[in-house]
Amino acid sequence: MEITANNPNRTSWVDVPENSDFPIQNLPFGVFSTTEKDARVGVALGEHIIDMYELASRGYLGDIIKDAEVFNQDKLNPFMKLGRDTVRAVRNELANIFDSNNAKLESSDDDKAAILVKQSSASMHMPVQVGDYTDFYSSKEHATNVGKMFRDPDNALLPNWLHIPVGYHGRASSIIVSGTPIHRPKGQTKPDPDQPPVFGPSKRVDFELEMAFVTYDGKALGDSISSDEAEDYIFGMCLFNDWSARDMQKWEYVPLGPFLAKSFASSVSPWIVTMDALEPYRCAGPQQDPEPLPYLKTKGDHSFDINLEVGIKTDNTDETKLAHSNFKYMYWSMAQQLAHHTVNGCNIRVGDMMASGTISGKESDEFGSMLELTWSGKNPIKLPDGSERKFIEDGDTVIMRGYSEKDGIRIGFGEVRSKVLPAK
Amino acid sequence: MEITANNPNRTSWVDVPENSDFPIQNLPFGVFSTTEKDARVGVALGEHIIDMYELASRGYLGDIIKDAEVFNQDKLNPFMKLGRDTVRAVRNELANIFDSNNAKLESSDDDKAAILVKQSSASMHMPVQVGDYTDFYSSKEHATNVGKMFRDPDNALLPNWLHIPVGYHGRASSIIVSGTPIHRPKGQTKPDPDQPPVFGPSKRVDFELEMAFVTYDGKALGDSISSDEAEDYIFGMCLFNDWSARDMQKWEYVPLGPFLAKSFASSVSPWIVTMDALEPYRCAGPQQDPEPLPYLKTKGDHSFDINLEVGIKTDNTDETKLAHSNFKYMYWSMAQQLAHHTVNGCNIRVGDMMASGTISGKESDEFGSMLELTWSGKNPIKLPDGSERKFIEDGDTVIMRGYSEKDGIRIGFGEVRSKVLPAK
Repeated sequence: MEITANNPNRTSWVDVPENSDFPIQNLPFGVFSTTEKDARVGVALGEHIIDMYELASRGYLGDIIKDAEVFNQDKLNPFMKLGRDTVRAVRNELANIFDSNNAKLESSDDDKAAILVKQSSASMHMPVQVGDYTDFYSSKEHATNVGKMFRDPDNALLPNWLHIPVGYHGRASSIIVSGTPIHRPKGQTKPDPDQPPVFGPSKRVDFELEMAFVTYDGKALGDSISSDEAEDYIFGMCLFNDWSARDMQKWEYVPLGPFLAKSFASSVSPWIVTMDALEPYRCAGPQQDPEPLPYLKTKGDHSFDINLEVGIKTDNTDETKLAHSNFKYMYWSMAQQLAHHTVNGCNIRVGDMMASGTISGKESDEFGSMLELTWSGKNPIKLPDGSERKFIEDGDTVIMRGYSEKDGIRIGFGEVRSKVLPAK
Repeated sequence: MEITANNPNRTSWVDVPENSDFPIQNLPFGVFSTTEKDARVGVALGEHIIDMYELASRGYLGDIIKDAEVFNQDKLNPFMKLGRDTVRAVRNELANIFDSNNAKLESSDDDKAAILVKQSSASMHMPVQVGDYTDFYSSKEHATNVGKMFRDPDNALLPNWLHIPVGYHGRASSIIVSGTPIHRPKGQTKPDPDQPPVFGPSKRVDFELEMAFVTYDGKALGDSISSDEAEDYIFGMCLFNDWSARDMQKWEYVPLGPFLAKSFASSVSPWIVTMDALEPYRCAGPQQDPEPLPYLKTKGDHSFDINLEVGIKTDNTDETKLAHSNFKYMYWSMAQQLAHHTVNGCNIRVGDMMASGTISGKESDEFGSMLELTWSGKNPIKLPDGSERKFIEDGDTVIMRGYSEKDGIRIGFGEVRSKVLPAK
């Protein structure tokens, strides 16, 4: 099925401001509610949300969706369970319904009033029920930076890193949607190597600038998804802030990996941008040397050109940009990550979330965490109000944004924004 | 509410064979189906299963359960969501209904025929929908043995181990119920330190003798469950075989922990024995030195005396016992594990599963994995048919059992049994 929704010449009869993240070529899926409407599936268009339940109930999706109830749900999973062909058909039909040349819905004031909701009047919810969450570690620059600080500066990259898309299982229960504040975590740290560990609020709360992808249903336990077919199992992507407590991490992570240093919260942007919408931004990733093992080899381009940025806002300052980066810096592609994840027979389910790991670039203003930006606190960042940041302080809000842009079309991800509150 | 179901003098009008794991003092919960009945909640009693949906539908549970549909489910989660008081009241009422001195149900042939199902005619299913799965590493003997083999024999126990109930997130999607065969996983290993890694079926598939507990709903994200209240959040326990591929583990696990070496499968026993049923077997755990930090301290006894054993059956031999152990050997208690898990504000949900880590004892016949029993393959185990095992081979079935016993009452867990099939 062709992705007709991506037609770059299409405009919509719904007003889309210049530089909006959500032109008619995007049409990302999320879950929203208003004072009148219970949580349900919506699609972003300009400054509006398309109420997919009302749209389907009023017959606009024809035979593509048999039962509108699939949209009257507080998670995307039932809709995603219908599979990639149905999702593509729905998105294509949305582009048609909202096309400037299609007057059908535009001319029905009743239907328009029921179907179009102002984003400013809606609350966004966690878009998917995450079955399992995996965090990869796929930026060579980030892995190298962390290796230098946590381990050996001369052997920063561990021997397996260039052969394996290294990853680990994370906590699904504490993944929260943009706008949800988090509390500074408490835990064990060992500030003095010669003294016993101590307990208290983390002193090194950090963000990690990441993106995540969300999967369709996979194969049965015991079967693998090959690198060639991997992208067929990916529904879409969102921004992902992998909150980290560096002092807790340092003390706990050997030998079984990060645990409480990560599990207190991870924040995601509310709109899942489909892989279909990102297709025009496909590009090559970094050259891989040594050559990966055959099960990790892919043909063609499997990275995506997505501009990323992270900023901080304090009670006394406007937002200050901390760093910019790009998803295409990732050494290992999503196709390779998913092929690796399932090569042992591990099954994936609809709504599984897999994050990239911190996406750092080569330059020092392209580092995706405070750990790297301040080099473990050695080079504090000055904010406009004169204060300094080594890590994130109580009251700080961290904001991440991302977008792809080409030929005047901008496919944006919105933002993931979270404020850090004091420890409880 | 008193746990009247534990009365040791009670007998049932349902025949319970001597040495049964399921006397009327046990009453564990699971999910079963038959050719006539869709998957639903059941309780084991002797060689029978109590069909909880039929029991509740026919009014035997009075006002304790408002809607019998809570049992007409293919997972225990909706029932567990009713909370500990309701679960306790149901179990107490079950003991009353099936007491030798209560003729009400016994005298109704129709009701008995609908409610009592022979275990031999039923299939057991995965009892809970696991939201998040965590694996701890709480046996000092196991951690020491592994440290000696994987790292440094002279500094086997890492510095954090005596301070932290070390754990890591595992894969929930691949947890399967006893009786489900698994396929040998494929993956990367590095057999020759001087050569690049290779890909293929694991040559070192291993079991890990563990137990797991299943949680009730917890507190909101940001709140902690204290060590004193932790046990109130635990529904019950089961046997847990944490399948492992040692060669893949060795190559992948630094620095972020085990990933594909574990995520191909974990097997559980089908019956969840409630903490209420285990109350008489409460005992002290090992002395903890150094003293844990205040948030990990507990008053009273928080271990449980549960005998464990693991055996192997090949196509050519009867079952051969490999090792025996005891849950009480665990250095860190479940209360400490759960308090640690949530001290950073991480939320738990109904159906979360937390495994103990391999439970090894001090003696060489008390080691809970082939890695330890054969000391990484150096001392193969001879089987009655003359064959030897360094690790688990294709066609082998691994069987784990567990039970508590005191004053003639045996509270058993049944078994978790899984056959290893060749790689796909």
